Amino acid sequence: MSKIRVTVWNEYRHEREQDVVAKVYPDGLHAAIAAGLGEHADFDVRTATLDEPDHGLTQDVLDNTDVLTWWGHKAHHEVRDEIVERVADRVYAGMGLIALHSGHHSKIFRKLMGTRCSLRWREADERERIWVVEPGHPIAAGLGPYFEIPEAEMYGEYFDIPAPESLVFVSWFQGGEVFRSGCCYRRGNGKVFYFRPGHETYPIYYMPEVRQVLANAVRWAAPTNGPAYPYLEHAINATETLESLPERDARRERVG
Amino acid sequence: MSKIRVTVWNEYRHEREQDVVAKVYPDGLHAAIAAGLGEHADFDVRTATLDEPDHGLTQDVLDNTDVLTWWGHKAHHEVRDEIVERVADRVYAGMGLIALHSGHHSKIFRKLMGTRCSLRWREADERERIWVVEPGHPIAAGLGPYFEIPEAEMYGEYFDIPAPESLVFVSWFQGGEVFRSGCCYRRGNGKVFYFRPGHETYPIYYMPEVRQVLANAVRWAAPTNGPAYPYLEHAINATETLESLPERDARRERVG
Amino acid sequence: MSKIRVTVWNEYRHEREQDVVAKVYPDGLHAAIAAGLGEHADFDVRTATLDEPDHGLTQDVLDNTDVLTWWGHKAHHEVRDEIVERVADRVYAGMGLIALHSGHHSKIFRKLMGTRCSLRWREADERERIWVVEPGHPIAAGLGPYFEIPEAEMYGEYFDIPAPESLVFVSWFQGGEVFRSGCCYRRGNGKVFYFRPGHETYPIYYMPEVRQVLANAVRWAAPTNGPAYPYLEHAINATETLESLPERDARRERVG
Amino acid sequence: MSKIRVTVWNEYRHEREQDVVAKVYPDGLHAAIAAGLGEHADFDVRTATLDEPDHGLTQDVLDNTDVLTWWGHKAHHEVRDEIVERVADRVYAGMGLIALHSGHHSKIFRKLMGTRCSLRWREADERERIWVVEPGHPIAAGLGPYFEIPEAEMYGEYFDIPAPESLVFVSWFQGGEVFRSGCCYRRGNGKVFYFRPGHETYPIYYMPEVRQVLANAVRWAAPTNGPAYPYLEHAINATETLESLPERDARRERVG
Repeated sequence: MSKIRVTVWNEYRHEREQDVVAKVYPDGLHAAIAAGLGEHADFDVRTATLDEPDHGLTQDVLDNTDVLTWWGHKAHHEVRDEIVERVADRVYAGMGLIALHSGHHSKIFRKLMGTRCSLRWREADERERIWVVEPGHPIAAGLGPYFEIPEAEMYGEYFDIPAPESLVFVSWFQGGEVFRSGCCYRRGNGKVFYFRPGHETYPIYYMPEVRQVLANAVRWAAPTNGPAYPYLEHAINATETLESLPERDARRERVG
Repeated sequence: MSKIRVTVWNEYRHEREQDVVAKVYPDGLHAAIAAGLGEHADFDVRTATLDEPDHGLTQDVLDNTDVLTWWGHKAHHEVRDEIVERVADRVYAGMGLIALHSGHHSKIFRKLMGTRCSLRWREADERERIWVVEPGHPIAAGLGPYFEIPEAEMYGEYFDIPAPESLVFVSWFQGGEVFRSGCCYRRGNGKVFYFRPGHETYPIYYMPEVRQVLANAVRWAAPTNGPAYPYLEHAINATETLESLPERDARRERVG
Repeated sequence: MSKIRVTVWNEYRHEREQDVVAKVYPDGLHAAIAAGLGEHADFDVRTATLDEPDHGLTQDVLDNTDVLTWWGHKAHHEVRDEIVERVADRVYAGMGLIALHSGHHSKIFRKLMGTRCSLRWREADERERIWVVEPGHPIAAGLGPYFEIPEAEMYGEYFDIPAPESLVFVSWFQGGEVFRSGCCYRRGNGKVFYFRPGHETYPIYYMPEVRQVLANAVRWAAPTNGPAYPYLEHAINATETLESLPERDARRERVG
Repeated sequence: MSKIRVTVWNEYRHEREQDVVAKVYPDGLHAAIAAGLGEHADFDVRTATLDEPDHGLTQDVLDNTDVLTWWGHKAHHEVRDEIVERVADRVYAGMGLIALHSGHHSKIFRKLMGTRCSLRWREADERERIWVVEPGHPIAAGLGPYFEIPEAEMYGEYFDIPAPESLVFVSWFQGGEVFRSGCCYRRGNGKVFYFRPGHETYPIYYMPEVRQVLANAVRWAAPTNGPAYPYLEHAINATETLESLPERDARRERVG
């Protein structure tokens, strides 16, 4: 069985601009995320960052990516529209996408959701408790009824996303908010998972439960080999019927 | 009780360029759709077309629209992006949108869905039978178990949309295809309904059942006065907690 | 327009057995709930309780009920199975059901859900904060982004229900739990809404926001006049096709 | 990696009572279904039938079953309620259930759905065409955009089920009906898939596409090792809070 090819994309600006982040992620968030995923023998993991040519997401990289994880925060606007389109096309064709934390405001996540994806937030080192509300979901594998993140940046409802097709996690925050923190969608042949935790000043991507969720999500989001996604820009004119129809008057005008 | 203010938007090109369409809709599809809706005492109906200034969708018109219906086909690309953004913002704020037939490929519908919204199609005057699969849904009010459209343009699966939050209708086509033809979504505070029938060479918008569906959909999609949509471009920094938290070390750096 | 006929069903045991409850609801929870609903000119409200003949739910009462609200707690097992079947049949036929608080363990709610509907709970007078996560939903009409219940009995996830078709509210509890507290479903032609708050020792059914939710829910759950629910015990043998089929060999055996 | 343990349950009455069925399934439908599944090295397949002691579903068999497939038709009422409860408990605990064809009216499927699960039907050897409407779903793996069953028993909407959490297939029938023929649900920790084809007078369970769907469904429905299902009959009284709360007045009465 072939490996799942994962590309871990990271903005990689905070880590190089702010000591408080560099201390937690000296080689970048992508290194920490990739290290966690790299422990799985069935994953083939690479990384890509904003400042690489084509943001590291050449057509060749994307064509050879089964699941793309995305972390960005302060430079969403610097992601070129043309690359966003490439990524979207690959999702429609079957590539999985895992949007992490502040990736809720990435161009690609907003495009795929169709909403603003805004929320309430606060940096106050509060405790977050992530509850599993769909225990039979593969993304919840290996978890208990809940797990805690001792210090987190709060994200609170109203989270402007489409209602998730499956809601896996709901978070409790010490400051009084709740948040739908594990949300599954399908877009074309691709699968999209949004996972909330991951503020850059906390060592969240080293946590075992968080790494478990990411690994589960990669397996859930990997392409599944169904009917090939058939659409480019246009709809398909299926001139031949699958059933025989009575003779139609050929003089009837067609408008197309 | 105040009336529901409906704006019926139509591309209005086919009707003026092709006799076969003008014969069916001499005053435009919008006239036929508006006439049907106009029979309801609780609706206040106006129309707007592509070639009017701002496509008839000035900020003032949109601010005073509760539900917008949209029919377009060959000139989706001529709808200015700035107007599309205006419409999207109004949907997020609570305006309803009813996308009709070839409106599946409109910029606004594609933006709100996040997928390509493509499909298979064929013009062969085939019979369509629309089955109700959610009989308790308000959009099915006044209908029987199914209704027929004697001659229709076929739209067939795979219809590249997100899984509908509610699926109300599924269509059967004489040529062998099926189609999810009545699909409900929420986007921000707004409600979106896609309804398939409506090819411009058939008198579909005069049919009683089709008019019934449109009236039901207007009532379903009308704004419902819940918590105001809070988001413009940015997320909300909720610096005050709703609960008291223990003292935090003020020297902890904040990144925002 | 005819009124929505609401029957408010209550177990009515706690109030007559325990002073702490009687002080809050001297005439029973049903009186408080009915009083709130009774303020709406478009509702026609009656009550029914467990110890009435047929639990107050004769066939005639049920046939003339558009929406049934249900509060029970310690005597679910005393509701006769035959009455449960009557209620279920009416829901399938289009009657709405609003299950309240400990009604999660009622026979009727469990039957309609198909799961055990269990949860975690605690009586510690904790604060509950109910967040709106679907602001465009009619059940959220008239509410702000959240409202608080100063003292509540905690209900916490994992709440063993099917994933709601629409999730309207998520609750935050002071003790650290979360709960999907406003859940919409369709069953046959009927609509079902589960609403969490309502512990009998707190004056919750006098709260304006709670009364707003109940009124909204009654309007949402009221029957909508779609295709009549067609099924009794058996499936329907539709011997006539809607399309003409080629001659079939009459000697082919039919098994039924 | 351990194998998925599948139990194929079959009523096994038609095959022994009617020649027309015995000719197609000389060793019973279960033999054909099990043969198809048995081709997969990661499945461990056994069978069980109605007339075996405990219908072949002893607690030990069920405790060692990861996925149960169910085909029944004319003797649903003969399945003992106590066995139905055993199966339901195993589903809540994480066992997958695949309900096939006339299994829509089985006690277990009806119990888990909470609706009557009735439909329209006709035996007229009509052609069925099964369209994939969720191509990225694992149950659609290895399929094309549609596949055909040359002769089938028609099942038509309105199919009285809860709206599927995921709808994978929609069927077209020659006689004019449509049907939601591949429907996914979660119940407790377990996953349930309903798959329509499978009338006993046609060799459907030998078809490659049907066998592909069943194998995909087994993999999708297999338990995924999330938080253990915690509930027996009662809810859990979580007396300890996860957060510290202020002192409460111990004289406040608790009602439980």
